[in-house]
Amino acid sequence: MKENKPVLHTALSPSMLHLYDANDTIVVIIDVLRATSTIATALYNGAKYVIPVESVAGCIELGNMPGTVTAGERDGRVAEGLQHGNSPFEYPREFIRDKILVLSTTNGTRLLHLALSQGAEKIVTGAFPNLSAVAHYLVSQQQDVLLACAAWKDRVNLEDTLFAGAVIDIVKDYFDINCDASMMANALFSEAKKDLYRFVKEKQASHYLRLSGYGLEKDIQYCLTPDIAPVLPVYKEGKLMAERNSTSR
Amino acid sequence: MKENKPVLHTALSPSMLHLYDANDTIVVIIDVLRATSTIATALYNGAKYVIPVESVAGCIELGNMPGTVTAGERDGRVAEGLQHGNSPFEYPREFIRDKILVLSTTNGTRLLHLALSQGAEKIVTGAFPNLSAVAHYLVSQQQDVLLACAAWKDRVNLEDTLFAGAVIDIVKDYFDINCDASMMANALFSEAKKDLYRFVKEKQASHYLRLSGYGLEKDIQYCLTPDIAPVLPVYKEGKLMAERNSTSR
Repeated sequence: MKENKPVLHTALSPSMLHLYDANDTIVVIIDVLRATSTIATALYNGAKYVIPVESVAGCIELGNMPGTVTAGERDGRVAEGLQHGNSPFEYPREFIRDKILVLSTTNGTRLLHLALSQGAEKIVTGAFPNLSAVAHYLVSQQQDVLLACAAWKDRVNLEDTLFAGAVIDIVKDYFDINCDASMMANALFSEAKKDLYRFVKEKQASHYLRLSGYGLEKDIQYCLTPDIAPVLPVYKEGKLMAERNSTSR
Repeated sequence: MKENKPVLHTALSPSMLHLYDANDTIVVIIDVLRATSTIATALYNGAKYVIPVESVAGCIELGNMPGTVTAGERDGRVAEGLQHGNSPFEYPREFIRDKILVLSTTNGTRLLHLALSQGAEKIVTGAFPNLSAVAHYLVSQQQDVLLACAAWKDRVNLEDTLFAGAVIDIVKDYFDINCDASMMANALFSEAKKDLYRFVKEKQASHYLRLSGYGLEKDIQYCLTPDIAPVLPVYKEGKLMAERNSTSR
């Protein structure tokens, strides 16, 4: 008997994931710059599915399957042995449609595996490009939620925190939120939402500095734009697939 | 040769302390509600020194020394076998002067021991009652700084984060701060500083709820008031003592 609202928590770093119960919980994997933004984009543009892998070696191996595209970067360049980078702009519909994207992403994939090992009931991925799709899904499920930020080598980062705050902004009336991390994320988003890009730039988020150093400002602007790839990536047996009802076009 | 500014980082939870280099670093232990607020108060009011201990049993044992006062709470009440609680109001000058306070505090002491085990060069404790004393000390030392929030059972909390943000607000021109956690803490403090108490109350910080449930609003207001116990508690060989130059009265 569950008369109360479901609960929502936010883990600002993978190092805090174990503090929260993942059982019977929807875990949202958040890696705004750029893994989960690119995942939403590729699926929205018709990719069959995305296989997230931690290592470049694993990416190369899976890339031997027919119909795959391998992707991943190290130090801002396409990693040796892979075909493409992490930018969402590399995956327009005419290129990625009906293909399988094997994406090497360290922080995001590690977090996803961590959530699995903690018994997460359902795993989806979120970023600004699919903000509303994620938020509406969470509201519809009436189930406990854990917003899990991939962060950067376990250090909290601004952009993942802001996305958690953005989700909370939409769903807060539907959840019981007694969690300082969630409150803080939401307060930060409230301050930032007028102009996310400017906020992130002004606060000199460390990841922003790292990426913009490679001339990727365009990527950052895209990754902070809500609802330009409205799709719900759901994880199942090693694959992220677009939930049918939420694929448009 | 150090031509650049020293660096400052913030660990929002003990679970992230290991991500930062503590060597040659001043670590500020932050446990606003209420351990580090009470430590500042007791020292400002003339306590000889404070011995922080994790367990109630350890507290009782050390309390056998002459001239000691034992303190600690469990579930909002003075723990069995101890003499006093964690409220700063229990340590006025006429009571605590020249005494040794043996303080049982779980989150704060555990964090302090963690910082020691990571080789922290110097350890001080901070809370709003001794905000400026801490900030001015950090500026004067020209050394790397790690602001370490005690949090609550490893979950980040609002009040410790706000204090980190308050310190950063004062010292930011003197440090190289390329750390999203620090930026976020400072942004939150900027939003909150007009009325800290109201901000914490409105955001329903989980610790606030827990404490105010025991009727301790007075404690919280005190613990969020800057500079009412201007002293610098410095850790050395198991003891927190007021740094001489910073004891007033």
